[in-house]
Amino acid sequence: MSGDGYADVEQANTAFYEALERGDFEALSALWLDDEISCIHPGWPVLSGRGEVLRSYALIMANTEYIQFFLTDVKITEAADTAVLTCTENILSGGPADAGGELGPLMGQLVVATNVFRRTSEGWRLWSHHGSPVLTESDDEGETEEETPA
Amino acid sequence: MSGDGYADVEQANTAFYEALERGDFEALSALWLDDEISCIHPGWPVLSGRGEVLRSYALIMANTEYIQFFLTDVKITEAADTAVLTCTENILSGGPADAGGELGPLMGQLVVATNVFRRTSEGWRLWSHHGSPVLTESDDEGETEEETPA
Repeated sequence: MSGDGYADVEQANTAFYEALERGDFEALSALWLDDEISCIHPGWPVLSGRGEVLRSYALIMANTEYIQFFLTDVKITEAADTAVLTCTENILSGGPADAGGELGPLMGQLVVATNVFRRTSEGWRLWSHHGSPVLTESDDEGETEEETPA
Repeated sequence: MSGDGYADVEQANTAFYEALERGDFEALSALWLDDEISCIHPGWPVLSGRGEVLRSYALIMANTEYIQFFLTDVKITEAADTAVLTCTENILSGGPADAGGELGPLMGQLVVATNVFRRTSEGWRLWSHHGSPVLTESDDEGETEEETPA
Protein backbone atom coordinates (compact mmCIF):
# COMPACT_ATOMS: atom_id res chain seq x y z
CA MET A 1 0.00 0.00 0.00
CA SER A 2 1.40 3.38 -0.93
CA GLY A 3 0.22 6.95 -0.71
CA ASP A 4 1.02 7.43 -4.39
CA GLY A 5 -1.13 4.46 -5.30
CA TYR A 6 -4.08 5.90 -3.47
CA ALA A 7 -3.89 9.22 -5.31
CA ASP A 8 -3.58 7.40 -8.63
CA VAL A 9 -6.57 5.21 -7.87
CA GLU A 10 -8.68 8.18 -6.88
CA GLN A 11 -7.61 9.94 -10.08
CA ALA A 12 -8.70 6.96 -12.20
CA ASN A 13 -11.99 6.89 -10.31
CA THR A 14 -12.57 10.58 -10.91
CA ALA A 15 -11.74 10.13 -14.61
CA PHE A 16 -14.38 7.36 -14.78
CA TYR A 17 -17.16 9.58 -13.45
CA GLU A 18 -16.02 12.59 -15.49
CA ALA A 19 -16.17 10.50 -18.66
CA LEU A 20 -19.74 9.58 -17.74
CA GLU A 21 -20.62 13.22 -17.09
CA ARG A 22 -19.22 14.26 -20.47
CA GLY A 23 -20.81 11.30 -22.25
CA ASP A 24 -17.32 10.49 -23.51
CA PHE A 25 -17.60 6.87 -24.61
CA GLU A 26 -13.99 6.64 -25.87
CA ALA A 27 -12.53 7.85 -22.60
CA LEU A 28 -14.83 5.55 -20.64
CA SER A 29 -13.88 2.51 -22.73
CA ALA A 30 -10.18 3.22 -22.24
CA LEU A 31 -10.61 3.16 -18.46
CA TRP A 32 -11.76 -0.49 -18.41
CA LEU A 33 -9.42 -3.47 -18.52
CA ASP A 34 -9.16 -5.32 -21.79
CA ASP A 35 -9.94 -8.73 -20.35
CA GLU A 36 -12.74 -10.09 -18.20
CA ILE A 37 -14.65 -7.25 -16.55
CA SER A 38 -18.00 -7.04 -14.81
CA CYS A 39 -20.49 -4.27 -14.18
CA ILE A 40 -23.72 -4.02 -12.23
CA HIS A 41 -25.80 -0.87 -12.63
CA PRO A 42 -28.35 -0.05 -9.90
CA GLY A 43 -31.24 -2.52 -10.19
CA TRP A 44 -29.66 -4.35 -13.12
CA PRO A 45 -28.43 -7.93 -13.42
CA VAL A 46 -24.72 -8.69 -13.88
CA LEU A 47 -23.05 -7.62 -17.14
CA SER A 48 -19.87 -9.54 -18.04
CA GLY A 49 -17.16 -8.84 -20.60
CA ARG A 50 -16.31 -5.68 -22.54
CA GLY A 51 -19.08 -6.24 -25.09
CA GLU A 52 -21.95 -6.29 -22.60
CA VAL A 53 -20.48 -3.68 -20.29
CA LEU A 54 -19.62 -1.08 -22.93
CA ARG A 55 -22.91 -1.60 -24.77
CA SER A 56 -24.75 -0.76 -21.54
CA TYR A 57 -22.85 2.52 -21.25
CA ALA A 58 -23.59 3.42 -24.86
CA LEU A 59 -27.26 2.82 -24.10
CA ILE A 60 -27.17 4.83 -20.88
CA MET A 61 -25.37 7.72 -22.57
CA ALA A 62 -27.95 7.73 -25.38
CA ASN A 63 -30.75 8.03 -22.81
CA THR A 64 -29.11 10.57 -20.54
CA GLU A 65 -29.18 14.23 -21.47
CA TYR A 66 -27.45 15.45 -18.33
CA ILE A 67 -25.74 13.74 -15.43
CA GLN A 68 -23.54 14.92 -12.61
CA PHE A 69 -21.87 12.93 -9.84
CA PHE A 70 -20.98 14.40 -6.46
CA LEU A 71 -18.79 11.76 -4.87
CA THR A 72 -18.59 11.47 -1.09
CA ASP A 73 -17.19 8.92 1.39
CA VAL A 74 -14.45 7.80 -1.00
CA LYS A 75 -12.50 4.98 0.70
CA ILE A 76 -9.63 3.10 -0.92
CA THR A 77 -7.82 -0.06 0.12
CA GLU A 78 -5.03 -1.52 -1.95
CA ALA A 79 -3.03 -4.73 -2.14
CA ALA A 80 -1.04 -6.57 -4.79
CA ASP A 81 -1.74 -4.16 -7.66
CA THR A 82 -5.46 -4.21 -6.96
CA ALA A 83 -7.54 -1.52 -5.31
CA VAL A 84 -11.05 -1.62 -3.93
CA LEU A 85 -12.73 1.78 -3.81
CA THR A 86 -16.11 2.43 -2.24
CA CYS A 87 -17.96 5.70 -2.57
CA THR A 88 -21.35 7.33 -2.42
CA GLU A 89 -22.57 8.74 -5.73
CA ASN A 90 -24.88 11.70 -5.18
CA ILE A 91 -26.36 11.84 -8.67
CA LEU A 92 -28.23 14.64 -10.39
CA SER A 93 -29.52 13.59 -13.80
CA GLY A 94 -31.99 14.50 -16.46
CA GLY A 95 -33.27 12.48 -19.41
CA PRO A 96 -34.42 13.87 -22.76
CA ALA A 97 -37.82 15.55 -22.60
CA ASP A 98 -40.76 13.65 -24.11
CA ALA A 99 -41.43 16.30 -26.76
CA GLY A 100 -39.20 19.07 -28.08
CA GLY A 101 -35.47 19.24 -27.44
CA GLU A 102 -35.56 20.57 -23.89
CA LEU A 103 -33.92 18.85 -20.96
CA GLY A 104 -36.19 16.43 -19.09
CA PRO A 105 -36.92 16.88 -15.38
CA LEU A 106 -33.88 16.66 -13.10
CA MET A 107 -33.76 13.76 -10.68
CA GLY A 108 -31.60 13.26 -7.60
CA GLN A 109 -30.47 9.81 -6.62
CA LEU A 110 -28.32 8.20 -3.96
CA VAL A 111 -26.19 5.27 -5.09
CA VAL A 112 -23.31 3.44 -3.41
CA ALA A 113 -20.57 1.90 -5.51
CA THR A 114 -17.77 -0.62 -5.18
CA ASN A 115 -15.16 -0.07 -7.89
CA VAL A 116 -12.29 -2.54 -8.27
CA PHE A 117 -9.18 -1.29 -10.11
CA ARG A 118 -6.11 -3.15 -11.31
CA ARG A 119 -2.74 -1.52 -11.92
CA THR A 120 -1.53 -1.90 -15.51
CA SER A 121 1.44 -0.47 -17.38
CA GLU A 122 -0.90 2.30 -18.56
CA GLY A 123 -2.25 3.08 -15.11
CA TRP A 124 -5.17 1.91 -13.02
CA ARG A 125 -8.01 0.32 -14.96
CA LEU A 126 -11.51 -0.78 -13.92
CA TRP A 127 -11.97 -4.49 -13.33
CA SER A 128 -15.42 -4.29 -11.77
CA HIS A 129 -18.06 -1.67 -11.04
CA HIS A 130 -21.11 -2.32 -8.87
CA GLY A 131 -23.61 0.41 -8.09
CA SER A 132 -26.77 0.02 -6.01
CA PRO A 133 -29.53 2.29 -4.76
CA VAL A 134 -29.54 3.33 -1.11
CA LEU A 135 -33.01 2.74 0.26
CA THR A 136 -32.80 5.04 3.24
CA GLU A 137 -34.83 4.49 6.38
CA SER A 138 -36.80 7.68 5.85
CA ASP A 139 -38.19 6.29 2.58
CA ASP A 140 -39.55 3.15 4.20
CA GLU A 141 -42.26 2.74 6.79
CA GLY A 142 -40.39 0.93 9.53
CA GLU A 143 -39.35 -1.86 7.20
CA THR A 144 -35.64 -1.65 7.92
CA GLU A 145 -35.57 -5.03 9.65
CA GLU A 146 -36.70 -6.64 6.43
CA GLU A 147 -33.41 -5.89 4.69
CA THR A 148 -31.91 -8.92 3.04
CA PRO A 149 -28.44 -10.08 3.93
CA ALA A 150 -25.55 -10.72 1.56
CA MET B 1 -4.87 -17.36 -13.51
CA SER B 2 -5.13 -21.03 -12.64
CA GLY B 3 -7.85 -23.65 -12.60
CA ASP B 4 -6.96 -24.55 -9.03
CA GLY B 5 -7.38 -20.95 -7.98
CA TYR B 6 -10.84 -20.81 -9.48
CA ALA B 7 -12.00 -23.92 -7.59
CA ASP B 8 -10.57 -22.53 -4.36
CA VAL B 9 -12.29 -19.19 -4.86
CA GLU B 10 -15.63 -20.87 -5.55
CA GLN B 11 -15.14 -22.99 -2.44
CA ALA B 12 -14.53 -19.89 -0.29
CA ASN B 13 -17.61 -18.28 -1.83
CA THR B 14 -19.75 -21.33 -1.08
CA ALA B 15 -18.42 -21.39 2.49
CA PHE B 16 -19.48 -17.74 2.86
CA TYR B 17 -23.09 -18.42 1.88
CA GLU B 18 -23.24 -21.67 3.88
CA ALA B 19 -22.08 -19.81 7.00
CA LEU B 20 -24.93 -17.35 6.42
CA GLU B 21 -27.43 -20.18 5.96
CA ARG B 22 -26.30 -21.82 9.19
CA GLY B 23 -26.19 -18.49 11.02
CA ASP B 24 -22.61 -19.40 11.93
CA PHE B 25 -21.11 -16.07 12.96
CA GLU B 26 -17.69 -17.52 13.86
CA ALA B 27 -17.27 -19.19 10.47
CA LEU B 28 -18.47 -16.06 8.69
CA SER B 29 -16.04 -13.84 10.62
CA ALA B 30 -13.13 -16.13 9.76
CA LEU B 31 -13.87 -15.80 6.04
CA TRP B 32 -13.23 -12.04 6.01
CA LEU B 33 -9.79 -10.44 5.80
CA ASP B 34 -8.36 -9.00 9.00
CA ASP B 35 -7.66 -5.59 7.54
CA GLU B 36 -9.76 -3.04 5.69
CA ILE B 37 -12.90 -4.65 4.32
CA SER B 38 -16.13 -3.26 2.93
CA CYS B 39 -19.66 -4.58 2.62
CA ILE B 40 -22.83 -3.29 1.00
CA HIS B 41 -26.06 -5.17 1.69
CA PRO B 42 -28.96 -4.66 -0.75
CA GLY B 43 -30.36 -1.17 -0.22
CA TRP B 44 -27.83 -0.33 2.50
CA PRO B 45 -25.08 2.31 2.57
CA VAL B 46 -21.41 1.27 2.64
CA LEU B 47 -20.10 -0.51 5.74
CA SER B 48 -16.32 -0.27 6.25
CA GLY B 49 -13.98 -2.19 8.54
CA ARG B 50 -14.46 -5.43 10.47
CA GLY B 51 -16.39 -3.74 13.27
CA GLU B 52 -19.16 -2.33 11.09
CA VAL B 53 -19.29 -5.27 8.71
CA LEU B 54 -19.44 -8.04 11.31
CA ARG B 55 -21.93 -6.12 13.45
CA SER B 56 -24.26 -5.97 10.45
CA TYR B 57 -24.11 -9.74 10.05
CA ALA B 58 -24.80 -10.29 13.74
CA LEU B 59 -27.86 -8.06 13.34
CA ILE B 60 -29.03 -9.82 10.19
CA MET B 61 -28.59 -13.26 11.76
CA ALA B 62 -30.57 -12.15 14.81
CA ASN B 63 -33.45 -11.08 12.55
CA THR B 64 -33.41 -14.03 10.17
CA GLU B 65 -35.05 -17.25 11.21
CA TYR B 66 -34.39 -19.04 7.94
CA ILE B 67 -32.37 -18.25 4.83
CA GLN B 68 -31.25 -20.25 1.84
CA PHE B 69 -29.16 -19.17 -1.14
CA PHE B 70 -29.38 -20.79 -4.57
CA LEU B 71 -26.40 -19.38 -6.42
CA THR B 72 -26.48 -19.14 -10.20
CA ASP B 73 -24.33 -17.45 -12.89
CA VAL B 74 -21.16 -17.74 -10.82
CA LYS B 75 -18.32 -16.08 -12.76
CA ILE B 76 -14.76 -15.75 -11.49
CA THR B 77 -11.82 -13.74 -12.78
CA GLU B 78 -8.48 -13.77 -11.06
CA ALA B 79 -5.23 -11.83 -11.17
CA ALA B 80 -2.35 -11.19 -8.78
CA ASP B 81 -3.79 -13.07 -5.78
CA THR B 82 -7.10 -11.30 -6.11
CA ALA B 83 -10.36 -12.71 -7.46
CA VAL B 84 -13.56 -10.98 -8.48
CA LEU B 85 -16.60 -13.23 -8.33
CA THR B 86 -20.04 -12.24 -9.54
CA CYS B 87 -23.15 -14.33 -8.95
CA THR B 88 -26.90 -14.22 -8.70
CA GLU B 89 -28.29 -15.00 -5.26
CA ASN B 90 -31.74 -16.57 -5.49
CA ILE B 91 -32.76 -16.10 -1.87
CA LEU B 92 -35.51 -17.78 0.10
CA SER B 93 -35.82 -16.36 3.60
CA GLY B 94 -38.16 -16.07 6.53
CA GLY B 95 -38.03 -13.79 9.55
CA PRO B 96 -39.32 -14.60 13.01
CA ALA B 97 -43.12 -14.57 13.26
CA ASP B 98 -44.69 -11.59 15.02
CA ALA B 99 -46.25 -13.70 17.77
CA GLY B 100 -45.46 -17.21 18.93
CA GLY B 101 -42.32 -19.08 17.94
CA GLU B 102 -43.34 -20.10 14.43
CA LEU B 103 -41.41 -19.22 11.28
CA GLY B 104 -42.49 -15.99 9.59
CA PRO B 105 -43.73 -15.95 6.00
CA LEU B 106 -41.15 -17.08 3.43
CA MET B 107 -39.95 -14.49 0.94
CA GLY B 108 -38.18 -14.95 -2.37
CA GLN B 109 -35.66 -12.37 -3.54
CA LEU B 110 -33.30 -11.86 -6.43
CA VAL B 111 -29.97 -10.26 -5.61
CA VAL B 112 -26.75 -9.90 -7.62
CA ALA B 113 -23.42 -9.83 -5.85
CA THR B 114 -19.83 -8.85 -6.51
CA ASN B 115 -17.49 -10.58 -4.08
CA VAL B 116 -13.80 -9.70 -4.05
CA PHE B 117 -11.43 -12.25 -2.52
CA ARG B 118 -7.74 -12.04 -1.67
CA ARG B 119 -5.43 -15.03 -1.37
CA THR B 120 -3.82 -15.33 2.07
CA SER B 121 -1.65 -18.00 3.65
CA GLU B 122 -4.86 -19.46 5.13
CA GLY B 123 -6.76 -19.43 1.85
CA TRP B 124 -9.05 -17.01 0.04
CA ARG B 125 -10.65 -14.36 2.24
CA LEU B 126 -13.34 -11.77 1.53
CA TRP B 127 -12.12 -8.25 0.88
CA SER B 128 -15.41 -6.81 -0.30
CA HIS B 129 -19.01 -7.92 -0.70
CA HIS B 130 -21.63 -5.90 -2.56
CA GLY B 131 -25.17 -7.18 -3.03
CA SER B 132 -28.00 -5.34 -4.77
CA PRO B 133 -31.60 -6.07 -5.67
CA VAL B 134 -32.46 -6.90 -9.27
CA LEU B 135 -35.41 -4.76 -10.28
CA THR B 136 -36.64 -6.82 -13.20
CA GLU B 137 -38.56 -5.26 -16.04
CA SER B 138 -41.69 -7.22 -15.20
CA ASP B 139 -41.87 -5.51 -11.80
CA ASP B 140 -41.80 -2.02 -13.27
CA GLU B 141 -44.28 -0.25 -15.48
CA GLY B 142 -42.11 0.53 -18.47
CA GLU B 143 -39.65 2.44 -16.35
CA THR B 144 -36.55 0.59 -17.49
CA GLU B 145 -35.16 3.59 -19.33
CA GLU B 146 -35.02 5.47 -16.05
CA GLU B 147 -32.27 3.25 -14.69
CA THR B 148 -29.36 5.19 -13.35
CA PRO B 149 -25.87 4.58 -14.62
CA ALA B 150 -22.78 3.85 -12.58
